[in-house]
Amino acid sequence: MDLQGHQLIGQQSIAATGKPIYAINPATGQRIEPGYGSGSMSEVELACQLAWSAFDSYRETTLTDRADFLETIATEIEALGDVLIERAMLETGLPRARLEGERGRTCGQLRLFSNVIRAGEWLDVRIDSALPDRSPHPRSDLRQRQIALGPVAVFGASNFPLAFSVAGGDTASALAAGCPVIVKAHSAHPGTSELVGRAVQKAVAICKLPEGVFSLLYGAGNDLGQALITDPRIQAVGFTGSRSGGTALMHTANNRPQPIPVYAEMSSINPVILMPAALEARADALGHAFIASLNMGAGQFCTNPGLILAIKGEALGRFMAAAADAVSTSAPQTMLTPGIYAAYSAGLKQLRDSGKVSEIAASNLPTESKSPCHSTLFLASATDFISDERLHAEVFGSCSLIIECSDMTQLQEVLEHLEGQLTATLHMDEADHDAIKRLLPTLERKAGRILANTWPTGVEVCQAMVHGGPWPATSNSRSTSVGTAAIYRFLRPVCYQDLPQMLLPEALRDDNPLAISRLLNGIRE
Amino acid sequence: MDLQGHQLIGQQSIAATGKPIYAINPATGQRIEPGYGSGSMSEVELACQLAWSAFDSYRETTLTDRADFLETIATEIEALGDVLIERAMLETGLPRARLEGERGRTCGQLRLFSNVIRAGEWLDVRIDSALPDRSPHPRSDLRQRQIALGPVAVFGASNFPLAFSVAGGDTASALAAGCPVIVKAHSAHPGTSELVGRAVQKAVAICKLPEGVFSLLYGAGNDLGQALITDPRIQAVGFTGSRSGGTALMHTANNRPQPIPVYAEMSSINPVILMPAALEARADALGHAFIASLNMGAGQFCTNPGLILAIKGEALGRFMAAAADAVSTSAPQTMLTPGIYAAYSAGLKQLRDSGKVSEIAASNLPTESKSPCHSTLFLASATDFISDERLHAEVFGSCSLIIECSDMTQLQEVLEHLEGQLTATLHMDEADHDAIKRLLPTLERKAGRILANTWPTGVEVCQAMVHGGPWPATSNSRSTSVGTAAIYRFLRPVCYQDLPQMLLPEALRDDNPLAISRLLNGIRE
Repeated sequence: MDLQGHQLIGQQSIAATGKPIYAINPATGQRIEPGYGSGSMSEVELACQLAWSAFDSYRETTLTDRADFLETIATEIEALGDVLIERAMLETGLPRARLEGERGRTCGQLRLFSNVIRAGEWLDVRIDSALPDRSPHPRSDLRQRQIALGPVAVFGASNFPLAFSVAGGDTASALAAGCPVIVKAHSAHPGTSELVGRAVQKAVAICKLPEGVFSLLYGAGNDLGQALITDPRIQAVGFTGSRSGGTALMHTANNRPQPIPVYAEMSSINPVILMPAALEARADALGHAFIASLNMGAGQFCTNPGLILAIKGEALGRFMAAAADAVSTSAPQTMLTPGIYAAYSAGLKQLRDSGKVSEIAASNLPTESKSPCHSTLFLASATDFISDERLHAEVFGSCSLIIECSDMTQLQEVLEHLEGQLTATLHMDEADHDAIKRLLPTLERKAGRILANTWPTGVEVCQAMVHGGPWPATSNSRSTSVGTAAIYRFLRPVCYQDLPQMLLPEALRDDNPLAISRLLNGIRE
Repeated sequence: MDLQGHQLIGQQSIAATGKPIYAINPATGQRIEPGYGSGSMSEVELACQLAWSAFDSYRETTLTDRADFLETIATEIEALGDVLIERAMLETGLPRARLEGERGRTCGQLRLFSNVIRAGEWLDVRIDSALPDRSPHPRSDLRQRQIALGPVAVFGASNFPLAFSVAGGDTASALAAGCPVIVKAHSAHPGTSELVGRAVQKAVAICKLPEGVFSLLYGAGNDLGQALITDPRIQAVGFTGSRSGGTALMHTANNRPQPIPVYAEMSSINPVILMPAALEARADALGHAFIASLNMGAGQFCTNPGLILAIKGEALGRFMAAAADAVSTSAPQTMLTPGIYAAYSAGLKQLRDSGKVSEIAASNLPTESKSPCHSTLFLASATDFISDERLHAEVFGSCSLIIECSDMTQLQEVLEHLEGQLTATLHMDEADHDAIKRLLPTLERKAGRILANTWPTGVEVCQAMVHGGPWPATSNSRSTSVGTAAIYRFLRPVCYQDLPQMLLPEALRDDNPLAISRLLNGIRE
């Protein structure tokens, strides 16, 4: 398929005339054709108008039709074949295996949401039957279901060009909820975005859905994104990216005449706690496994282990020696964009300049990449960490900070001083259990996911996943951006009181034609 | 019980020294003793510190202990006896029967949440079992539950001195979720608040809970409320009141270093649509029933029918004549406060001054009340309504605006121009069903609750209720402030990955010791 550099609006392919976006090969620094002209207000207007006109019918498609649509998107993405992987490799510097895995995850995610749609649990049906003889007042017949919120704006992420981009988790969950989606492509991988966007566009046509169900816009700078989220027809925003980007979107969304929710997944340093017994038993193995996790995707994971907490001593020394050894033999990987490389370098410099950290290892193997990630390990004292907020900032890349604590009390104090996190990880043996019981309340308050004897990189797409957490890990700790519960971000409840059966939505009728789980007079049926 | 005019902070009773608040008897304009000295930063600090220190243990109380606590609050409120009703009558001007009914609802609400806690559905447990042999990557064991968000600030409402005040819906749902609560009493009924506050305080002691689970603060003006919601320990806000009050709270909450959710239930004019066949068949009866609903609580209900939509013609004429007749014989009721009376008078004046409405009836029976609500009906054309936003504003009281439409198309156009609403009501016969099918998508987008052949005043506390709706009816259309689903406002998900059984919360253990409904590998068990 030849890339055209167009905006995909409904079933149309439109050449916009604003400042063009070009992908840059981060390994070589070279520009990649074609250019993608930035869209303007008129493209935003058309996409929003189409999305709005599609909304009422799309949100009431049958469970089967909507589930089939998500499956068709997966099929069409797979049908793109190797051209998708090759373009994504060029645009992101990510290796083939990673991108093939990510494609599998993206399509698996669409198929999982397809199952979720069919199961109908997301409708959260609650029925309270009429009680005409109740005294002193009779009770009406009351029935609740969830309906789609409205058209959703999704901002593609840089670090998962497939799984968190055009047809990624935000798009899949919003489409599953019955919301039309308008994606703003991430400027780092416009060609990958176009390929996936055309697959979605084709699925819309195959499934005979209203064309406004999906559009894909491009824009250099922030103007197009701002225009999109200030449009009154947009009812929610999905975003994965930096803290500054997320807070800017929130500010705009909160200051609309009608404020709307922004689901922004932003920054996290993902503390890993090495409990004493575990550290004593396997410091060396933990050190090596730590660096393997740190280096995944050149550290460009939201769940990268950016902070290690342990008690000072000989075992921690062994852990650091093993980790330093693994770092020094780490081959530099190409980072996603020249901009991310520059930000990583600046983040390392800020840590070094703080005067509070000592550098204990850095990879320095030669590389020809123009955007290399040199893995770097720092050490700081718990006291310095607690007193200096600069040490708490996420450095996006393979950088981690080890904090030496005097004892478990100080370690817990460090945890209490952390901002909200996506994850918190414990390495433990049975002898550590009692101490962990005292830590768990803190960890539950600080993080969306608590892991034992594993590493936080790697986010399973399933029913129980929480990829979220207290501010500033996300803008809304009551949700997740990965896993099936992500669908609830884009739904709202509606109650029907005393409506005749024939006017009720199918989900709420007495004979339960959708055969879904419902709460009937407080009892799950 | 003698009222002391104190702040109730944990188990303490503290005389604050700020500007005192006095209740005013709205019927007589007379001040009611005692004065309640406004709290300052030191009272906010103490309440927040106690709430924070109670949080970790309160949120992990057993389901039984927490359910017993809510039941004990209900018992203690009932034990106050007639002193509560008499004080509330003095402070609010509401009649005895209404307040006795509201007390029943308040205690019933606490007991319903007690049942919700015990059932454990709110934990939304999801378990995805480990798949150690899965290829290419094994799956970890992943388990999700909901945990309490943190201490919640609740602002008492003027119009339900029991059911939406100190131990009302916001407090009951937050306590049920496991959140300590700090209430700011509404200044219109400080004595009623103290009585209920002492009942809650006593229940905390009886149930041997940490004292910080509940505090009750008083403050003239906005300073104390602002101090409360900017305190970093407060994690969510519940509010029922005006649009300006709700948006001010949202602004403050959004601009904290850590933004927090505000659940504000604000303003709604609650359109009632008289469908042609129903109007033709029973215009007279509908007219009388309409005024009965309009006059309930002197119109001081969030769900007051402030807007009637119908097609111009003879039947609408009969409806208006019947309604006008009922209005002219309506005895003026005392409004809740002199301030609400003043705002009602100003709202009527704004409508009259708009030049777009004609007054078709107003009650003018004599009254000795100093804050009388004279029921008032206006008429306007659909065209004028659509073009003049002043006609869309809520006038809190027994005021309603009838909109004459030329046909169903114009009626639907009026609906499309409405802001978000708590309710939308249809009066219909079978001959109206086809036309209603075309209206329903609009109504679903505009309102949280859709009613047929009844009136919106009266909100059942049950599983299926939605007392919420799109902006500006509420700040968050994805929630409800009445009914059991209100508990979800104060919860967030946490995922546990590969934790040993003994470290897992009981709700997530293999043997399901709480015997709750769970989603196991996608199947409801």
